[in-house]
Amino acid sequence: MTTPLPLIPLLEPIRPQMEQVRRLLHEALTQVQEPLRAMLRHSLDGGKQLRPALVILTGQVFDAPPAAFHRLAVAVDMLHAATLIHDDLVDGSTLRRGRETLHVIWPAGATVLAGDYLLGEATALIAELESPRVLKVFAGILRTMCSAEIKRVLATNGGANTPPPAPDREDYYRNIEAKTASLFAATLEMTAILAGVEERQIEALRRFGWELGIAFQIVDDVLDFASDAARLGKPAGSDLRQGLITLPVLYYLEGAADQPNAVSAVLAGRRDEAHVRAAIEAVCASGALEAALAEARDHTQRGHAALASLPDTPPRQILHALADYLIDRNH
Amino acid sequence: MTTPLPLIPLLEPIRPQMEQVRRLLHEALTQVQEPLRAMLRHSLDGGKQLRPALVILTGQVFDAPPAAFHRLAVAVDMLHAATLIHDDLVDGSTLRRGRETLHVIWPAGATVLAGDYLLGEATALIAELESPRVLKVFAGILRTMCSAEIKRVLATNGGANTPPPAPDREDYYRNIEAKTASLFAATLEMTAILAGVEERQIEALRRFGWELGIAFQIVDDVLDFASDAARLGKPAGSDLRQGLITLPVLYYLEGAADQPNAVSAVLAGRRDEAHVRAAIEAVCASGALEAALAEARDHTQRGHAALASLPDTPPRQILHALADYLIDRNH
Repeated sequence: MTTPLPLIPLLEPIRPQMEQVRRLLHEALTQVQEPLRAMLRHSLDGGKQLRPALVILTGQVFDAPPAAFHRLAVAVDMLHAATLIHDDLVDGSTLRRGRETLHVIWPAGATVLAGDYLLGEATALIAELESPRVLKVFAGILRTMCSAEIKRVLATNGGANTPPPAPDREDYYRNIEAKTASLFAATLEMTAILAGVEERQIEALRRFGWELGIAFQIVDDVLDFASDAARLGKPAGSDLRQGLITLPVLYYLEGAADQPNAVSAVLAGRRDEAHVRAAIEAVCASGALEAALAEARDHTQRGHAALASLPDTPPRQILHALADYLIDRNH
Repeated sequence: MTTPLPLIPLLEPIRPQMEQVRRLLHEALTQVQEPLRAMLRHSLDGGKQLRPALVILTGQVFDAPPAAFHRLAVAVDMLHAATLIHDDLVDGSTLRRGRETLHVIWPAGATVLAGDYLLGEATALIAELESPRVLKVFAGILRTMCSAEIKRVLATNGGANTPPPAPDREDYYRNIEAKTASLFAATLEMTAILAGVEERQIEALRRFGWELGIAFQIVDDVLDFASDAARLGKPAGSDLRQGLITLPVLYYLEGAADQPNAVSAVLAGRRDEAHVRAAIEAVCASGALEAALAEARDHTQRGHAALASLPDTPPRQILHALADYLIDRNH
């Protein structure tokens, strides 16, 4: 290990475990030949390490032996990285975490296969846990995430020339549940199963992950308007440029009462810089971001409530604080 | 069920089991919403059903209860279909099994995700088998196949403008082992593990699958020269057009003793119809196809030898005959 792992201050108490997760991740990569290894390292480095941290902290709540949780943390991180590689390719996103996405640097074909490789590697790690129940949850996430993504891709695929999708709150929730909440929920569920806790605790943790995931995604969607490219690591307004209707847009459009407006112009296909910037400013000025954040906070509170049924330990307190941090972050 | 499943005559004795596998496959699809369901059906229909047949027949050799083998057969078929979807996209192949490939009909992004979905579905079926050892083999194939494919893609990616790859028999074997033999070997190995047989029988079946896979791929590479588009379900000479150096090409180039020739012209980038046709004719006239087929037969015989250690039953005889059929087929 060379440089220390960048961590948010809240996670300092589990630094040794997080460093161990990173070591395991790098060990898995040493078995891979170049240039694939370089591709995978590019995709796995960086990020907030949220999902691995959730696994480690939850394992600690139940004082379970750590080795299996380290492995699960790596598997979840790899699964997440694989879906990001494919999603960035599918969406044509060129920046993530402040760096060029994989398909910008490497041929698209190799990018597809690198994602597949990571799925295989993640599955191999899950196999080592020897828990059929954990594996079932793991396999389920991939199906849930993919079917939702396919729907989204086919709905927005035509780009600027197709009619704009209708603003629909149910669609929005269905999409963020499948793409984000399901992975958070499954991560906590797998961790709980591995810890061998009671069914009601498995359910409580799944629920905590679910609410956390929804809150996290809403905040992400708010930051796409409220933050800047330097902090986001990608251009602001990316979602709008892709024609995605997120919660801030829904709140904005409700307030606009069907009148022509800056956002509807972008959704109708005027995706040049001036129109996108005007739309971002209109959304920011409208109070839509505050309304969306309040809705995210509701979900965090439901998550906190689910967490309250677990043993009151220091790691549980960190999980609680982590849920608040996800709301208050600025990138 | 509407139309009877098309099967080669050799597989008629296991028609009921093969129909059952198809039913399971279709059942899995009924849970999927359109349009993904249509995409998956397109990718799963057709083909020679070889891998599922190998699973069924091997299960019967050991007289094991059939349900688990049906599930494994479906999982292997889905894994295979997923790799074909991604490979066709990566290679830009437009025809397979006489039909347009998925990415020709649907957006490339949706095609990536449909392949991912099938990987998830296959993993879910493997999870139901509740055998960590089978799962480990399953996860291993994906890694093996992907890393080999990435190497190949990056080596040939430049297309007509990069220097032609050096003809290298080791490279050829390394590639067909990873892309074809490994899946055949793993299929037989998983089946043997599931049947609960002795280690030496697991090893014999793995070896049988390995040799069968190599023979199968060599014959595929011969047919790319010897057959026509109608029978192949794709244009003849596809490999050469992509700059792939297969065994027939290696034999041809050995005979050409470093002189400029029709094949080296294509490999150097002259991939127009006239040059490709001249190269195909030159390879066919050179005896290279016969030499490659003889090499395939050697592998089949090694496969037969491995098979001889199993109980002599009617399904074992079909497995033996199937290995011969794979050599003698014309598509």
